[in-house]
Amino acid sequence: MSVGENIPRVDAWEKVAGRAKYTDDLVDRNALIGKIRHSTIANGIVKKFDLSEAEKIKGVVKIITCFDVPDICFPTAGHPWSTDPAHQDPTDRKLLNTRVRFYGDDIAAVIAVDEVAASRASRAIRVEYEEYPVVLSPEESMKEGVPLLHEGFPNNILKHTTLEDGNFEEAIKEEGLIKIEGVYETPIVQHCHIETAVSWAYMESGRIVVVSSTQIPHIIRRIVGQALGIPWGDVRIIKPYIGGGFGNKQDALYEPLNAYLTKIVGGRPVKLELSREEVFFGTRVRHSEKIYLESWVRPNGRLVARSYKAYSNQGAYGSHGHGIAAKGTNVFRQLYRDEKARKVDIYTVYTNTAVAGAMRGYGTPQAVFAVESHMEDIARKLNLDPLDIRFLNVMPVGFTDPFTRNVNYFDSFRQCVDKAKAYIKWDEKREQYKNQSGPLRRGVGMSLFWYNTAVWPISIEVSSCRMVLNQDGSIQVALAETEIGQGADTVFTQMAAETLGIPWRKVHIISTQDTDLTPFGTGAYGSRQTYVGGAAVSKVALLLKEKILRAAAVYTRMPMENLDIVDGGIVLKTHDNRFLTSLEELAIDTLYHTEHAQHITAESTAQVKTNAYSFGCAFAEVEVDIPLGKIKLINLVNCHDCGRLINPKIAQGQVHGGMSMAIGFGMYEQFIYDPKTGKLLNGNLLDYKLPTILDHPHLEAEFVENWEPTNPYGTKALGEPPTVPGAAAIRNAVLHATGVGINRIPLTPHALFAEFKAAGLI
Amino acid sequence: MSVGENIPRVDAWEKVAGRAKYTDDLVDRNALIGKIRHSTIANGIVKKFDLSEAEKIKGVVKIITCFDVPDICFPTAGHPWSTDPAHQDPTDRKLLNTRVRFYGDDIAAVIAVDEVAASRASRAIRVEYEEYPVVLSPEESMKEGVPLLHEGFPNNILKHTTLEDGNFEEAIKEEGLIKIEGVYETPIVQHCHIETAVSWAYMESGRIVVVSSTQIPHIIRRIVGQALGIPWGDVRIIKPYIGGGFGNKQDALYEPLNAYLTKIVGGRPVKLELSREEVFFGTRVRHSEKIYLESWVRPNGRLVARSYKAYSNQGAYGSHGHGIAAKGTNVFRQLYRDEKARKVDIYTVYTNTAVAGAMRGYGTPQAVFAVESHMEDIARKLNLDPLDIRFLNVMPVGFTDPFTRNVNYFDSFRQCVDKAKAYIKWDEKREQYKNQSGPLRRGVGMSLFWYNTAVWPISIEVSSCRMVLNQDGSIQVALAETEIGQGADTVFTQMAAETLGIPWRKVHIISTQDTDLTPFGTGAYGSRQTYVGGAAVSKVALLLKEKILRAAAVYTRMPMENLDIVDGGIVLKTHDNRFLTSLEELAIDTLYHTEHAQHITAESTAQVKTNAYSFGCAFAEVEVDIPLGKIKLINLVNCHDCGRLINPKIAQGQVHGGMSMAIGFGMYEQFIYDPKTGKLLNGNLLDYKLPTILDHPHLEAEFVENWEPTNPYGTKALGEPPTVPGAAAIRNAVLHATGVGINRIPLTPHALFAEFKAAGLI
Repeated sequence: MSVGENIPRVDAWEKVAGRAKYTDDLVDRNALIGKIRHSTIANGIVKKFDLSEAEKIKGVVKIITCFDVPDICFPTAGHPWSTDPAHQDPTDRKLLNTRVRFYGDDIAAVIAVDEVAASRASRAIRVEYEEYPVVLSPEESMKEGVPLLHEGFPNNILKHTTLEDGNFEEAIKEEGLIKIEGVYETPIVQHCHIETAVSWAYMESGRIVVVSSTQIPHIIRRIVGQALGIPWGDVRIIKPYIGGGFGNKQDALYEPLNAYLTKIVGGRPVKLELSREEVFFGTRVRHSEKIYLESWVRPNGRLVARSYKAYSNQGAYGSHGHGIAAKGTNVFRQLYRDEKARKVDIYTVYTNTAVAGAMRGYGTPQAVFAVESHMEDIARKLNLDPLDIRFLNVMPVGFTDPFTRNVNYFDSFRQCVDKAKAYIKWDEKREQYKNQSGPLRRGVGMSLFWYNTAVWPISIEVSSCRMVLNQDGSIQVALAETEIGQGADTVFTQMAAETLGIPWRKVHIISTQDTDLTPFGTGAYGSRQTYVGGAAVSKVALLLKEKILRAAAVYTRMPMENLDIVDGGIVLKTHDNRFLTSLEELAIDTLYHTEHAQHITAESTAQVKTNAYSFGCAFAEVEVDIPLGKIKLINLVNCHDCGRLINPKIAQGQVHGGMSMAIGFGMYEQFIYDPKTGKLLNGNLLDYKLPTILDHPHLEAEFVENWEPTNPYGTKALGEPPTVPGAAAIRNAVLHATGVGINRIPLTPHALFAEFKAAGLI
Repeated sequence: MSVGENIPRVDAWEKVAGRAKYTDDLVDRNALIGKIRHSTIANGIVKKFDLSEAEKIKGVVKIITCFDVPDICFPTAGHPWSTDPAHQDPTDRKLLNTRVRFYGDDIAAVIAVDEVAASRASRAIRVEYEEYPVVLSPEESMKEGVPLLHEGFPNNILKHTTLEDGNFEEAIKEEGLIKIEGVYETPIVQHCHIETAVSWAYMESGRIVVVSSTQIPHIIRRIVGQALGIPWGDVRIIKPYIGGGFGNKQDALYEPLNAYLTKIVGGRPVKLELSREEVFFGTRVRHSEKIYLESWVRPNGRLVARSYKAYSNQGAYGSHGHGIAAKGTNVFRQLYRDEKARKVDIYTVYTNTAVAGAMRGYGTPQAVFAVESHMEDIARKLNLDPLDIRFLNVMPVGFTDPFTRNVNYFDSFRQCVDKAKAYIKWDEKREQYKNQSGPLRRGVGMSLFWYNTAVWPISIEVSSCRMVLNQDGSIQVALAETEIGQGADTVFTQMAAETLGIPWRKVHIISTQDTDLTPFGTGAYGSRQTYVGGAAVSKVALLLKEKILRAAAVYTRMPMENLDIVDGGIVLKTHDNRFLTSLEELAIDTLYHTEHAQHITAESTAQVKTNAYSFGCAFAEVEVDIPLGKIKLINLVNCHDCGRLINPKIAQGQVHGGMSMAIGFGMYEQFIYDPKTGKLLNGNLLDYKLPTILDHPHLEAEFVENWEPTNPYGTKALGEPPTVPGAAAIRNAVLHATGVGINRIPLTPHALFAEFKAAGLI
């Protein structure tokens, strides 16, 4: 038994001792330095460059501009490739762009012998632009007459979809229905991983190697091939330890450009490391969404029909595009079951803001904020208990989704709510905080959430794994699913140990992915590592075990059917697991056998054609200082059903991190743009208010362990879910405390002050 | 067809552009520097150290001595492990040694922050010894009363074996036999690879990683585990490009010590790079041998019985030990067939010289020098043609060796001799140089040679390979057989391309071996790369092809039996190879298929239980300046039957390099020791006379291509054979020119002067 234990993280020693190697630790001593020249307008066209001053700077090796790069538009989103064009991501970006689409767009690049020369030269490039007006919001960008950001996308709409279940117009004709409306807005926020985007590239034997801090090495290989117009096999991506990604590194950020930079200097190594400021304005962000909800409800709270209309701000380039808005609608459609009908109308729209891509939660934090704020508003309007109305409408046990064929096997919602409710003393506090007055008021609020594990059936889900038996009975495990700080390497270690019947310390996980060597897999996203990667580990461990037992049968002369591996030893399972020989002895005999020497390894691909619901809730308690417009978060508890916990401590850590992100999303973080120039005004860690440990109460992570039947280890998504419900729970707690429901996050003092004033509290 | 073509070396670009990464190019920026303190006596015991001065030097991190290291004796020879103790190598060495056995033995080590501090501290260590008399030759070392170098080895004999085929004493009773005797001596020489021994080591997650310039990464892993007494799986060896090895790096040189050094500083990286001088006195050398031959011959030249007695100088430690002398006796026993009997009596003896290990030829250059010089002496004594007497006695076509079950399938000797003879105009020159006088005289000489491919059945022969199909129809090939400059990566590329039916440019060979990732194989030695590695490439390519064709059958709906891969396309072999689809299209469909996604890879182990004779000859023409004692080598031609040539140009390169080594062995190189102190006097590239391009005539490499039936590509050994016959051919040419047969190489002016004087020529 290794699964379920709190074994220490397998990378703990390296990381604590500072020995773990990250991309920048490995840079070739002789690497040249690349620097990107960013546009200083947000919308327009580069007319021409004057490079004369820049070229004079000592140490400059090469300067390229948007007029030099290949005329290839490529996709950047980190999705598995699809041979079906309808499932491919937008291809709307070149390595450097003449058509400038946001303030900070990439228009030229300098390669120099050091950081100083590269930076100086980048600054010394003179640019002439033709400027267009700046548009920062979808609704504005969709207006007639606004300049188009990308050809072929009228009204700057990247994609628009509608959907109707049942007949909405018929449904709302039912007598006695109450119509409740709300508009909910979420901000542009960023991942704020510790390690900025960094890569370095070189050529070997005519092929391009990029060492990069990425979540998705095999996908990056494909995108670099596409962006440069070269065979994918001519690209090699190596991913060392990375200092966080949270979805930003589930995108090809600068690997294609870096690959191109090394190519144009004949394969000399070139490093491309972004500053924090460049990461802010120039990488990816969470889509800001404006969501219009309209609900038709019976007085007892039963939802009869609802409509969901959303505008998702794509920013300047397609990246993950419409997928985020689409996943949001699944929250709307699946979390609660309308009795008769519901309809969806969603737009993903190009604007001149930062490019929106994948970020932990992938559209669900926005949608859950809207849906769960709205649910609270309905409960309040109908004077119903917020839990009662939720359980009246929530997805029932036994529900099967016709598209994903997901089944809601367990009463997870009720079990999670019961746990979290008890922890926060919900009933007691709902009562206690009923009639408050004065400047300081307390409240409790909650939110459910819905999440789907991994990406099937939208995209394929495959993961390959390779295992090797060593002469000491230890094994190496390699797969392309990536450790990005979340603990994936540790849980894979535990899974392999459990299935093989060996101590976890005998499992050596290969943390570095290298597309030349690592079996194919698509990487870290969609909370898929334990679920899909786990399926690969299980499949290959069983294959390896079979090979080991076959060799053991030869060695021990016992029938293979009677043998098993327990605690690293070959045992007779028919005779109380009597010990026969050690794996070490067997491995050495097999590898060096003069008659039948064999290197015991196993490799295979697991394709997962299931998905799994991963539900839960958050409960928050706040104290609001009304005159100051300040919220003090007193208590926050998340309760998750993510199936069986592989490593409870690491699971807790995941939840803590997600809760912290939810606090930032709900209370602190937002991109602020200059409306005239489109320049990001707070794109650094001083002005962008990331919450710190001082802004956090104790974060309580609780679990309900319902063994997920679609996974060999009984596990399902936990990576992203923790970040989903917090913002709505806090907003609803503020509503409970003050009677004011604020529909736009973050709940900053500015926002609260305005709202409280409008509500007459100040 | 890729095999047989002169494709450019796949590593040519990297090496020509200076981009290829060698061990030292990859050293961690923060690596500490290790320096070994060597003994300044050749025989004795370390009594004590005074480290006080050394420890005071700024930058010193740690000093360890022979009193600190684990009390573990380990083997260093790069052989596959054997579970049979009788087949294991001598275990007679510790990481640092209290019992000093040669001048320069490792007695302490310093770890410091830089080269200067490490060197200064190493010099500042004061040592007190107890000294014993120095013994430099086997016959001296075997004498009674000489101090024993290793416990348990009386008379310093590491191993002594005798062998008799037939009844020698009976055989020599035949009437009319002529007895001919000779004593032949070969020097201690060294490999002189360009890159010295270098490694660096660090720890990750409790395991030790050693990056090393080695021929045998998987074997080094095992030896490091043994030397430190830790599980073998806790060791990881990475082998980048290497600048030559020639057998010196078929030994664990300093990887075990380097692993220990990083361990005692808590896993901080430590680099251990040897100077050229340290390589000379402290790594490995070719065994010097003294061989006594006694032949009983009929007047027509037919060998009736022979005896072979040899003393092989092992130097201070066991390393490859008796295997070298033993392989030499195979030359004696197999090259010529005595009609009645032969006997062998060989000793491998410890002395206080440098440790003798593997060097290109592995005992055969010594034995061929003796046997072929002796054959020439017999011909001369009996007044027979040197070719006639050889063909009268040489191993006949159809001969089968009962031990190896090798078969001499072809008339290779005759074919090779015919080619070489024609090139050098043998008959014409034998005539022309018959009656010379004066100071300048010319002569021609020749030598046959015998060589066995790889090491079966002495040791196991296994090689594993893994191949991966990429989305562009290219493949990666990984195996543990190592590119050491010989061109292995290129021929593996050609083999894989041929078996798979794809262009060679679509094959990406993984040049770096990493024991965590690379399929098991034992590395570069015994001229086994193409023969054993090729078997693995063929086996795995066929497995991969089968998987590809199975997928192609699904994709094209054609029966698998009708399909083939030609030039990277799936074709209908039943219909003139009509093109159906590209491998690229098939690979993408298969990898991203929503129903049956599959990462097509193949991996397996090939065990080779055959061996193959790899024969040939060398012919030399010299001009001897008698008064000056100088030989001018005018012509040298080698002709080899190494089976089918995979890459004729690379094969030529191998032969040229080997011929150059033979010239050095025959004419220039030798270790010269101070007889009193045992100190090496010429251990540097200035005083050790390595021949240069100026000392070489045109080197003519010719081939006879008899398709070897035991190998899937029809190939057999070529790595070592070229270095084997040259010395005897030169010696015999000098004999032809001057009438003086010199039995001790190298044929330096000193030696020639003395011999010519004794012969009355001067």
